[in-house]
Amino acid sequence: MVFNIGLLGLGTVGTGTAEIILDNFGRNPLLKEINIKQAGVRSLDKTREVELSADVMTTDLEAIVTDPEIDIVVELLGGLEPARSLILMAIANGKHIVTANKAVIARYGDEIYSAANEAGVYVLLEAAVAGGIPVIKPLKQSLGVNRIQSVIGIINGTTNYILTKMAAEGSDFADVLAEAQQLGYAEADPSADVDGGDAADKISILASIAFGERVKREEISCEGIRQISATDINYAEDLGFVIKLLAIAKGGKGQPLQIRVHPTLVPKEHPLSNINDVYNAVLVEGEPLGQVMFFGPGAGKGATASAVVSDIVNIVGILKSSDRRTNLDPLLSCSHQHYANLLPLTEITTRFYTRFLCKDVPGVIGYLGTCFGNHGVSLESVVQIGFQEDLAEIVVVTHDVKEGDFRQALAEIKDLDAIDSIPSIIRVL
Amino acid sequence: MVFNIGLLGLGTVGTGTAEIILDNFGRNPLLKEINIKQAGVRSLDKTREVELSADVMTTDLEAIVTDPEIDIVVELLGGLEPARSLILMAIANGKHIVTANKAVIARYGDEIYSAANEAGVYVLLEAAVAGGIPVIKPLKQSLGVNRIQSVIGIINGTTNYILTKMAAEGSDFADVLAEAQQLGYAEADPSADVDGGDAADKISILASIAFGERVKREEISCEGIRQISATDINYAEDLGFVIKLLAIAKGGKGQPLQIRVHPTLVPKEHPLSNINDVYNAVLVEGEPLGQVMFFGPGAGKGATASAVVSDIVNIVGILKSSDRRTNLDPLLSCSHQHYANLLPLTEITTRFYTRFLCKDVPGVIGYLGTCFGNHGVSLESVVQIGFQEDLAEIVVVTHDVKEGDFRQALAEIKDLDAIDSIPSIIRVL
Ligand SMILES: NC(=O)c1ccc[n+]([C@@H]2O[C@H](COP(=O)([O-])OP(=O)(O)OC[C@H]3O[C@@H](n4cnc5c(N)ncnc54)[C@H](OP(=O)(O)O)[C@@H]3O)[C@@H](O)[C@H]2O)c1
Ligand SMILES: NC(=O)c1ccc[n+]([C@@H]2O[C@H](COP(=O)([O-])OP(=O)(O)OC[C@H]3O[C@@H](n4cnc5c(N)ncnc54)[C@H](OP(=O)(O)O)[C@@H]3O)[C@@H](O)[C@H]2O)c1
Repeated sequence: MVFNIGLLGLGTVGTGTAEIILDNFGRNPLLKEINIKQAGVRSLDKTREVELSADVMTTDLEAIVTDPEIDIVVELLGGLEPARSLILMAIANGKHIVTANKAVIARYGDEIYSAANEAGVYVLLEAAVAGGIPVIKPLKQSLGVNRIQSVIGIINGTTNYILTKMAAEGSDFADVLAEAQQLGYAEADPSADVDGGDAADKISILASIAFGERVKREEISCEGIRQISATDINYAEDLGFVIKLLAIAKGGKGQPLQIRVHPTLVPKEHPLSNINDVYNAVLVEGEPLGQVMFFGPGAGKGATASAVVSDIVNIVGILKSSDRRTNLDPLLSCSHQHYANLLPLTEITTRFYTRFLCKDVPGVIGYLGTCFGNHGVSLESVVQIGFQEDLAEIVVVTHDVKEGDFRQALAEIKDLDAIDSIPSIIRVL
Repeated sequence: MVFNIGLLGLGTVGTGTAEIILDNFGRNPLLKEINIKQAGVRSLDKTREVELSADVMTTDLEAIVTDPEIDIVVELLGGLEPARSLILMAIANGKHIVTANKAVIARYGDEIYSAANEAGVYVLLEAAVAGGIPVIKPLKQSLGVNRIQSVIGIINGTTNYILTKMAAEGSDFADVLAEAQQLGYAEADPSADVDGGDAADKISILASIAFGERVKREEISCEGIRQISATDINYAEDLGFVIKLLAIAKGGKGQPLQIRVHPTLVPKEHPLSNINDVYNAVLVEGEPLGQVMFFGPGAGKGATASAVVSDIVNIVGILKSSDRRTNLDPLLSCSHQHYANLLPLTEITTRFYTRFLCKDVPGVIGYLGTCFGNHGVSLESVVQIGFQEDLAEIVVVTHDVKEGDFRQALAEIKDLDAIDSIPSIIRVL
């Protein structure tokens, strides 16, 4: 049998995808039955790393999604439009979809999955989260028999690279970002990565799968790493922590779901503390399973293409094995309708690391204790840790507190004359 | 719809399996469609941790595998017989199989899968390797589009616990084993674990999936941890290594496959070096993916049951989604016929750590260099590291060598008068 696929996009990931399919010796034998019928791009004049014959290349993307001979449309354009419209058009034409596009799924997943369920087609997206690491399928197929308690990920390689470098070299954010841009680990406009939006897209997808509810992307609270300083990385290190940009989804036990992205102090003995450079990792905790972690390359041509092609092969396996398919396999589709009720940030419970710059140390320490105490915030440690010119630096780590209470205490503390400023507030895992 | 399952065995894993299925709130909704029709045990008089009605419990295991109303037989007996015969009988009766039994699959996988393919039924075995960690399905479904280069696992929790404790406390094998037995981490007869047989069963299954060839279990070379001493753990630590029992499968590029289980010096910066206590991890390397690692609990009631139930749900998902199934999904079945040609241990290439006890240090060091050199073994380091009474301890770490050459050199070295003994020879990753 031959299964025809249409590629939308032949950039980094599209090229990697074509390379695996064309060079299939020693790989899954189903690859031999896959034919790249069309590949849609913006420009026919670019030289391409992968050789596809001229009649395969096209700029007419609509022709691909409506081609009656194409079984699977592989969307590797990126961005919201025309990706969204083309995916919907392909579904309406009975095509199965494979995509690596977290942005479009995080925002239009409800629309896309509703259409796919109606049309009886699959929309697979392993490559959209954590690149080459199998995490979406294990979460859907294997871990879902557990009551999932949390999914915590380092799922943005750019920020993990920057934080790792900052920690190793004691350098500042701006310098490391510039270096990462030169190396191709960060884009010219780095905001989607460094402000946490990319991680928020991905955790919204993971949370939706893990907790079986739709998630409104815009409700996810999201804080990036621009304000992380070499100073805080240093102090965190002294206290036994490393700073990582974590994407966190917690729920279960009938509690409202909480989903958030923020820099976090991770204890050095925690499995996520060892994930460095551009690597990604996703830690899932469930009952009765306990903790499992998936680790590997979160991006890059080959790794991401590995995930894309595994989804293609997955669909081919299903198509080959059934005569007439009455329903979608519930373990590979996405049928939940209900929107999750997200816990507001003020209601979450977490520990905090906070750094104060102040004038009068003994007075301040007493005042901090009283003021936090009045708001029910109990402190794990208060350390006068250094000096910045004539100002003393005090670092406070709290026990678990409700974020709202903590912020109220902080608002009061800010008003004290002896407090010069509060340069950093970072949550602790 | 209701899908009837028959449990063979209601011990640790059987109980965990029944508990997940019966207490299904907040888990994968497909669990609501699963009914435990029968549970077969040896004795009806034992009190059971899980409540199943009297007519569900039986000692007639053949009645379960031939029951026309049962869709899926879940084999959780352990051991070779009657497990093998009951699985074959269930297959002959058109049942899908889920099993956690690495011993029976490692030895009779060829017979079982041939029968299953003929009967058109699935035999799923996620729980057989690395307990609750999804690794079989990701390897089959996601990673197989890569050219797999190696699969390396810490896949026996008992030995990993013992080695971790020995390293942390400086204690000897026998003491830690006794402690592990008291804690229930090691069996009364610990040989399957400490001599590496359990890990060999599991790596033979992983290798077969990763490289698409059948593997003869008895051809796997296998060395346990009984001879690992506190001394070597200490010296390894000084050299920047930890000692782990690794199960290794390497192949690809048309090379014969190598599969082996042995204690191994793992560099501290390697991801497997941080896997401690009873945890398991499996590291897969492939092209173009790179390295991915799966980490989590490798045994225990809840974790293992999580994997068993995920397989059951997987089959239910397939049964619900197709009217009439013409073929098995190639990504969930196992159709390879060809037996792998395993590379003999003498032909593998690896580094070695070797500890010598000797009388005349300067003389010995010269002789070692010459003798290894004559056999093409180049040395990375030679260190006189300590004393045992009046004997000097010399530790040699080689570069990559062919194991056969190394052994020949060693045979010669042994004959030297100045060499008292060679207490340890451990491979290095
Ligand atoms: N790169 C990674 O490591 C990575 C990792 C995980 C996920 N992803 C996701 O994978 C997707 C693709 O990423 P990429 O890095 O491969 O992007 P890319 O290199 O920018 O490639 C995009 C491709 O789409 C084509 N294209 C874009 N807009 C088009 C339009 N309006 N009409 C026709 N063709 C259009 C481009 O055509 P031309 O070639 O003619 O310009 C190009 O071939 C994105 O959703 C991304 O988030 C990427
Ligand atoms: N335990 C783990 O953490 C773990 C982890 C991974 C894989 N596994 C695998 O899971 C399987 C089950 O392990 P387990 O720990 O659950 O074993 P177990 O606690 O010893 O339970 C075995 C069950 O099978 C029944 N049984 C055994 N032989 C029988 C026979 N001839 N006729 C009728 N019933 C028989 C026993 O009946 P009675 O109750 O009446 O004695 C018992 O219910 C094994 O293949 C094991 O390797 C276990």
